[in-house]
Amino acid sequence: MTRRLLVLVETQDRPGLLSRVSGLLHSLGANVATSLGYRVDGRARILFMVDARLEPGELAERIREQLGGEARVEAAYLGPEGAELLAEFLEDKPGLVNLLELYLDPPDLLDALLRLPEEARRRIYRVLSHSSLARIMLLADEATAQEIAGSLDPDHLARALAALEPDETVDVLQKLPEKLRRQLLGRLPEPLREEAQRLLRYPPDTAGGVMTTSVPVLRADDTVQRALQELRSGEHDVRDTVVVVDSQGRLLGLVTVDQLLRAGPGERLGSLALKPRATVEPEADREEAARIMLRYDISRLPVVDQEGRFLGLITIEDMAGVLTEEAAEDIALLGGVEAPKERYLKARVLDLFRRRILWLLMIFLVESVTANIIKGYEDVIRRIALLAAFIPLVMDTGGNVGSQASSMIVRALALGEISEKSRHDIVYVLLKEVATAALIGAAMSAVGFVFALLLSGGEVKLSLVVALTLFIVIMMADVIGASLPILARRLGIDPATLSSPLLTTITDIGVTVIYMGLASYLILGR
Amino acid sequence: MTRRLLVLVETQDRPGLLSRVSGLLHSLGANVATSLGYRVDGRARILFMVDARLEPGELAERIREQLGGEARVEAAYLGPEGAELLAEFLEDKPGLVNLLELYLDPPDLLDALLRLPEEARRRIYRVLSHSSLARIMLLADEATAQEIAGSLDPDHLARALAALEPDETVDVLQKLPEKLRRQLLGRLPEPLREEAQRLLRYPPDTAGGVMTTSVPVLRADDTVQRALQELRSGEHDVRDTVVVVDSQGRLLGLVTVDQLLRAGPGERLGSLALKPRATVEPEADREEAARIMLRYDISRLPVVDQEGRFLGLITIEDMAGVLTEEAAEDIALLGGVEAPKERYLKARVLDLFRRRILWLLMIFLVESVTANIIKGYEDVIRRIALLAAFIPLVMDTGGNVGSQASSMIVRALALGEISEKSRHDIVYVLLKEVATAALIGAAMSAVGFVFALLLSGGEVKLSLVVALTLFIVIMMADVIGASLPILARRLGIDPATLSSPLLTTITDIGVTVIYMGLASYLILGR
Repeated sequence: MTRRLLVLVETQDRPGLLSRVSGLLHSLGANVATSLGYRVDGRARILFMVDARLEPGELAERIREQLGGEARVEAAYLGPEGAELLAEFLEDKPGLVNLLELYLDPPDLLDALLRLPEEARRRIYRVLSHSSLARIMLLADEATAQEIAGSLDPDHLARALAALEPDETVDVLQKLPEKLRRQLLGRLPEPLREEAQRLLRYPPDTAGGVMTTSVPVLRADDTVQRALQELRSGEHDVRDTVVVVDSQGRLLGLVTVDQLLRAGPGERLGSLALKPRATVEPEADREEAARIMLRYDISRLPVVDQEGRFLGLITIEDMAGVLTEEAAEDIALLGGVEAPKERYLKARVLDLFRRRILWLLMIFLVESVTANIIKGYEDVIRRIALLAAFIPLVMDTGGNVGSQASSMIVRALALGEISEKSRHDIVYVLLKEVATAALIGAAMSAVGFVFALLLSGGEVKLSLVVALTLFIVIMMADVIGASLPILARRLGIDPATLSSPLLTTITDIGVTVIYMGLASYLILGR
Repeated sequence: MTRRLLVLVETQDRPGLLSRVSGLLHSLGANVATSLGYRVDGRARILFMVDARLEPGELAERIREQLGGEARVEAAYLGPEGAELLAEFLEDKPGLVNLLELYLDPPDLLDALLRLPEEARRRIYRVLSHSSLARIMLLADEATAQEIAGSLDPDHLARALAALEPDETVDVLQKLPEKLRRQLLGRLPEPLREEAQRLLRYPPDTAGGVMTTSVPVLRADDTVQRALQELRSGEHDVRDTVVVVDSQGRLLGLVTVDQLLRAGPGERLGSLALKPRATVEPEADREEAARIMLRYDISRLPVVDQEGRFLGLITIEDMAGVLTEEAAEDIALLGGVEAPKERYLKARVLDLFRRRILWLLMIFLVESVTANIIKGYEDVIRRIALLAAFIPLVMDTGGNVGSQASSMIVRALALGEISEKSRHDIVYVLLKEVATAALIGAAMSAVGFVFALLLSGGEVKLSLVVALTLFIVIMMADVIGASLPILARRLGIDPATLSSPLLTTITDIGVTVIYMGLASYLILGR
C-alpha cells in the first residue's frame, strides 16, 4: 500500500542538506510531494511529505543511518499518527501552514491543529484559506468550531462558509451558538442564505439533516441532452444521478448517468425515470434511512415531503460516515457513557466528569439495595463467613451471562436479523435463550459446585447453595438480558441504552436475594 | 415516507372479494403493486403488496372495519417485520413464490424463508429463479447457503451463481464446504471461473476480499469516446468511474464520468486520469481500507499489487455494509461473545452454548481468585459481617468506571480522534483520565461514606474503609480501562476484545485485595 508519510529531519544545518535527504528518500522508493524547512537555534528542521511503500519506522531508520549520529529523523503516516509531527513542525512557525495547506487534506490538518497549543492554533486559523477553514469547521467538533469562529471576524467566516455546499454550511452553522449563527446567515450570499435557512429546520439526526440539496433536478419533458449538460457543469455534489420532478416539484423518479449514456439525446427524462425503491420524509430518523439504504442496496435515497415534493438526496457516501458515528455512539452507550459531542482531545475534564457521574450515581443507588439486602442477613454471614467469598463470583457470572445475551440480541436487531415487532421472533428468541441458558446453567453450576466444595473444604450444603444460585441466576440473567433490547426497541429507545452496566445492576439485586435466601433456608433452615 | 406493506386478508370466500379489498386499499391511498390469493378450508387468503403512507396497524384496522366481523386482516412493513406474514402465506403454497418473486427484494424473501419450516423452505429453493437464488445465497449466512446448496443439484447451482458478478460469486463460494466449492468452480462458465479462482485467494476480511473487479479498465491512449462507450455498455458494477492502466496493467489513475462528460470525445484518458489519494494492497485489513475511505471521503479505492498492477476497486457502497458488520462484531465482543457467523434465527443452541461457555469459564477462573482472597479474610468477616454488604457496591462501581473509560477510548480510537501510536495522545489520555477519575473518585467516595455511615448505624471506621476503597478502585479502574484499548491496538488486537467483562474481572480482584486489606488494617489494626 502506498501511503503518504511525513518525515521530519532535524540536524546541524549544512549546505546541500535538503537535496541530500531528497536523494535518500528517492533511493528508498519514496516520492517527495513537497518539502519545507526552517532554522531553529542553528539547526535545520525540514518536513517532507512523501508517498512511500516502506513503513515509517523503517524509512526513518534508513535515513538516520545515512545522515549519521546526531540527526533526528522521525516519520509517521499522515493522519492521526502523523499529527504530532506536523504539530511540532508548525508550532514554531504557524505561518508556514500556508505553504503546506495545498498538500494537506482537511482531516490531517485538523488532527495536527488539535495537538497544538491554543495560541498557535489561533494564529493558524487566521492565515488559512477560506476553503480549508470551511472544511475544517465541517469536520470539527462543536468546541473547535466555536474556537475557530471566535478567532475570526464574521465577514471572514461568512466568506469561508460560502465555499461549502448548502447542506455543509448548515452542518457548520449548527455547531455555532444561536447568535453567531444569525449573524453569519445575514452575511451569506443570496441563494445560499435562503437554502441554508430552509435546511436549518431539520435536526442533524434526521433524514433532512443528512440529505444534500446539491443535486441536478429536471422536469419530465426535459431531454437527455439537457440532463447530460447539467451533469457536465460539475456544479452539483451528486454527479451520477438526475432527479426528475413534475411541475409541482413532486418526485417522479431518478435517472442514472449510465441510463443517460445509453439513451438518445432527444429522449425525454419522463420516459427514463425509475420510481425509487423507497423514499423518506425529512423528519425520519437518519438511522432508519440508513437501515433501508443498506438493506436494499440503495445508494441515492430521495427525501420528499408529505405532498411528495422532492427535497434532497441522501447519498451512501454521506451515510457511511453517519453509520460510523452511530456505531461509535452505541459503543459509548454500551459502556455506560452518553456519547460526547466533542472530540476526546477537546473534551474538558469537567464535562467528562459530568457525563459519567450521573450514571454512576444511579447505579450506586440501585446497588445500595443489594447492600441493604445483605445487611438483612448479617447474622447468617456471621455464622457462615465463607458465604461472602462467593458473592463476587455468582454476581459476575450473572452479569456476564446477561450481557452476552443482550449483546447477541442487540446485534441481531442491528443487522435486521430479527424484528422486535414480530411475535414469531420474540417467542423464538425466548425459547432459544431458555434452552441455551439451561445448558450454560447446568455446566456452570457443576463447575461452581466442585469449586465451592474445594474452597470450603467439603461443605456440601454451602456448595449446593452456590450451584443452585448459579443455575437460577444464569436463567434469569439470560432471559432478562435478551428481553431488554427487544423491549427498548418496542418503546422506541436505542437498545444500547439499556446497556450492560444497568443490566448488571438489575441482576445483582436478583442474585443477592436468591443467594442469601437460599443460604439462609438450606443451611440454617429458616 | 411511502413504504411497501404486506396486507394479508383471510375471510369467508365471496364473489368480488379481491376487487372489494383492492378498492378499499385504493381509497386509503395505498397503491396495490400486486395481489395473490388461494383458498384454504373454504376461506379465501389473499396477500396484497401495496405502497402506502399509512402505518400498517392503521391500514389493517380500517380494512377490518369495512370487511366486518369475522375477517382477519394483518399488515406489516415488508422487511423483517413482514417476514412472518409472508412466511405464513407461503407455508401452505410454497409454489406461489414464483409469482411473488418479481415483487420481492432478495433480503425480504430471505427473511421470510428463515421463518418457514425447513420442508417448505426446501420446496421454495427448488422453484426460485436463478437470479433470486444467487442473490439469496449472497445475503445468507453460511448455514443457510449450505442448506440451499444441499437442496439443489450442482448444475442448477452453478447456473444460478453465473448470474452474479465474479466477486459476488466468490462471496457465495466462500460459504460452502471445500469439496462443493471445487465442484461448482468446475461447472462455472469460462471467464467467470478463472476470475473466481483468482479472487478466491483473498480472505473475506481483506481489501481483496471486498473489492469488485467488475470495473471498466482502459489504457492511457484510449479516448474519452471509448470510455463513454464502455460505461454505456452497462456491463460493469462500477458505472461512474473508469480505471486507466499502462501496458503492464499498472494503475495510472481514475477518470470519473463527469470528467468524461466535460472532456472532448477525442481526448486521451492519460491526460485526464487523476492519481488516487490512496491505494491498498489486497492483503490489507478491510477495516483499515474503510478507515482511509471515510477519512478522506474516497468513494472508489483502488486495490493494487506490490508492482502497482490494478486488481480491483473497493466501492463505498460495499464498504457501508462492511462497516455495519464490523460494528455488529464489536457489539458482540463488548458483551463477551465471539460474533456468530450465522444469523441468530439459524444459530443452533449447541453452537450458542459453545460460543459463550468458554468465556464464562475463563471469567469464572479469574473470579475464583477473589473467592480465595475473601476466604483468607474469613475471620475478619465473621467479626464485621457488615463488610460483606458493601462488596457488590464497590465492585460494581469499579467495574462501571472501568467500562466507561474503556468505551470512551475505544470510541475515540474508532473515530480516529486519537492514535495509539502517538506519544502525545497516550500521555494526554492518561493525564486526562487521572484528572477525571480523581473527580469521580472524590464524589463517589463522599457519597459512599455517607451511605455506609447510614447503613452501618454510624460505624465511622467501616465507612472510611468503604470511601477509601471507592477512591482507590475508581482511580485504578479508570486508568486500566483507558489503557487496555490502547494496548490492544498496539498489539494489533481489536480493542473490543478486551471488553468490559474481562475488565470487570480484573478490577474485581484489585477491589477485593484493597477492600479486605484496608478493612483488616484500619478496623482490626492488623
